[in-house]
Amino acid sequence: MTYQRFFSHAAAQMRESAIRKMGTLGTRIPDLISFAPGYPDPATFPRDRFQEIAASLLSGSDGSTLQYGPTRGFRPLVEALDSILLSRAIVSRFEQRLITSGSQQGLDLVAKVLIDPGDAVLVELPTYAGAISVFSNALADMVGVPQEDDGIDLAALDHTVARLRREGRRVRLLYLVPNFQNPTGLLIGLDKRRALLDWAERADVLIVEDDPYGDLYFPDSATAEETRPIKADDHGGRVVYLSSFSKTLAPGFRTAWVVAPEALAAKLEIAKQATDLCTGALDQRVVHQAIVQGVLAGLAPHLRAHYQAKCAVMQEAIERDLGGLVTCAPARGGFFLWATLPPQVDADSLLPRALAAAVTYVAGGAFFVDDGGANTLRLSFSQPTHDRIREGITRLAGAIRAELEAQSTPSRDNGISVPRG
Amino acid sequence: MTYQRFFSHAAAQMRESAIRKMGTLGTRIPDLISFAPGYPDPATFPRDRFQEIAASLLSGSDGSTLQYGPTRGFRPLVEALDSILLSRAIVSRFEQRLITSGSQQGLDLVAKVLIDPGDAVLVELPTYAGAISVFSNALADMVGVPQEDDGIDLAALDHTVARLRREGRRVRLLYLVPNFQNPTGLLIGLDKRRALLDWAERADVLIVEDDPYGDLYFPDSATAEETRPIKADDHGGRVVYLSSFSKTLAPGFRTAWVVAPEALAAKLEIAKQATDLCTGALDQRVVHQAIVQGVLAGLAPHLRAHYQAKCAVMQEAIERDLGGLVTCAPARGGFFLWATLPPQVDADSLLPRALAAAVTYVAGGAFFVDDGGANTLRLSFSQPTHDRIREGITRLAGAIRAELEAQSTPSRDNGISVPRG
Repeated sequence: MTYQRFFSHAAAQMRESAIRKMGTLGTRIPDLISFAPGYPDPATFPRDRFQEIAASLLSGSDGSTLQYGPTRGFRPLVEALDSILLSRAIVSRFEQRLITSGSQQGLDLVAKVLIDPGDAVLVELPTYAGAISVFSNALADMVGVPQEDDGIDLAALDHTVARLRREGRRVRLLYLVPNFQNPTGLLIGLDKRRALLDWAERADVLIVEDDPYGDLYFPDSATAEETRPIKADDHGGRVVYLSSFSKTLAPGFRTAWVVAPEALAAKLEIAKQATDLCTGALDQRVVHQAIVQGVLAGLAPHLRAHYQAKCAVMQEAIERDLGGLVTCAPARGGFFLWATLPPQVDADSLLPRALAAAVTYVAGGAFFVDDGGANTLRLSFSQPTHDRIREGITRLAGAIRAELEAQSTPSRDNGISVPRG
Repeated sequence: MTYQRFFSHAAAQMRESAIRKMGTLGTRIPDLISFAPGYPDPATFPRDRFQEIAASLLSGSDGSTLQYGPTRGFRPLVEALDSILLSRAIVSRFEQRLITSGSQQGLDLVAKVLIDPGDAVLVELPTYAGAISVFSNALADMVGVPQEDDGIDLAALDHTVARLRREGRRVRLLYLVPNFQNPTGLLIGLDKRRALLDWAERADVLIVEDDPYGDLYFPDSATAEETRPIKADDHGGRVVYLSSFSKTLAPGFRTAWVVAPEALAAKLEIAKQATDLCTGALDQRVVHQAIVQGVLAGLAPHLRAHYQAKCAVMQEAIERDLGGLVTCAPARGGFFLWATLPPQVDADSLLPRALAAAVTYVAGGAFFVDDGGANTLRLSFSQPTHDRIREGITRLAGAIRAELEAQSTPSRDNGISVPRG
């Protein structure tokens, strides 16, 4: 029996995420070095503290620790967000906050509440692939806007909205990752952040600001001030702000949050009721204790140094093994380097050769809503050790050079074999 | 600033769930006895075992314990479902299973994959309110089919589908809760289950079988055989089966699962990728250990006796305090009694009087997709103690009698005051 006739329009066009597919493929290759997933380094997880906290929570007599809880979130955790948000210059009330099961759920809820099929949704070129999946499943028509060194191109943004509106299209939101963007690592400049708020007001558009990496600036090249969220200056109620504990405490707790104008937060909460009732009770309590016991605050400087060092190792290795072949702007925070290959090298076509050399990455095309980025790739330095990063870049360099060589020797057989399952 | 113009069609018509609203209201009333939420009794949670398991998991060196994981689920847990499913006579392959963040997420994914706006979705009259929310947010047009003592009325089902198809409507799925239905407690008869499979084949419709309560049959009045899932005999690939650990181990872990034909399971997995990436890593591992260490199996008989006793207490209390006024079919499993008030008593209108007496319930209308059920209510006996159940029914009886008395003495002022916030 086939099921095509039962699928919704959304399901009919759903595609497996390139990043997840890479993960599945990768498990079959021995000794693979993966620069694909944007996973934090498990070596940074404060497991001892989590163990103490969990033991204490489960030894108590509070029946709510494992019960259903409020959709809005475990109240003390929602309240504890206050100090985290204030440290980012965001003033918010309880009623504007909502705990989500990861920021991915935050995006899903945003799509449910703000997107109708056929709506135009503005995104950066390139942008986070998980957001592309959400908006695509909501049957939105994503329209990409190019980026400059300091983030999205404002003139192009104006031009794009004007064009879409002339065409009679509905444009209700712009999705941005202002801090150490996934995938490019770019940081939107402070002037541009303020200009974006003015633009949103003028264009009557909401900004969805996704900020998982803001805490992870590299002290040698960036400051906390430079990561000031757009939301911090959102006096007009134009910004839906998403952030997460996944990149700092641990992703396994699936605990993140949204701050939005109260009327939007209320709708997001109702949407969440029908989506998963509530976020995990124990997970929220562990995260809450990690905040109030100072675990998170104590961890942050260590994480910044940890990822800064890994990034430096990868940049040096690229310089050493791929200097002149690959261009790669230095990252100032986050998990990613964004590499541009020689124009004739297609990152998708290169992948079999890379896998044969036991190294992988995400081909840049996955982050573009147009057909751009064929010769780009995202390299995540967050998880592998320094030695593995160096070794992985050496392997990647071998694959790229072999590809270039193959291109200069015409032959139908590319001479490589890759495990497929 | 108002946000109406930004809301999707779905958001514009989203309403807070009646059950959740009741929960919020209830927290403001001192000494309230709540028969509203279908929460398991936290006294049954095996906290000591969870504490041991969590300590062991967090003391290990496995970095994946707190990391992102596969969207499909923690592999050993997906595998461990095999024996649970076999005990319910369901034979399934790994590729047909998917872990979800609670069964509510399972329903949300089903809606994403199988429903387009305007589709007709068949549901029982009454049905689970959380499913109504999901289908409503998916902009489905729910069509209710009456139930008989042994479950949904097959003749009415045939008639309804024929009518809808004549009207040119698309009908792709029937949603059922065959075991101890939420809200009525009804059990679909075994003959009718088989007939439903034939019907699904004939009508070319999929059945979504939601089974959170099947394990909780009451040994004095029901048998495991009577809870045999429709899925067990689904040789044609017509059934999407949902079940959960929320009513047995604990809801706070947000760990549930779906079994579906492989092509559907694959689409549900892709939908889940964009919805929350994966279910909680630690939660899944705790649940997995609770299965393999025999905690779940050891708990089940205890849970059956525990809820059977509570149900009996409530039934006796209703007999004693409300005999002749309220009719209430005996429950044979699950968490709920379904009460019918005298026809002139509206359960919604009764609510302020009940709250003033510090007792609450869910007015039955919340479970109907037509305007039915005005004089019905759902009473959950799962969470309160025996004494609180008795006291709560006494309070409810007082409220009902006062309402009847008020109706027989015409007056504009109903003479009660309720805290509102």
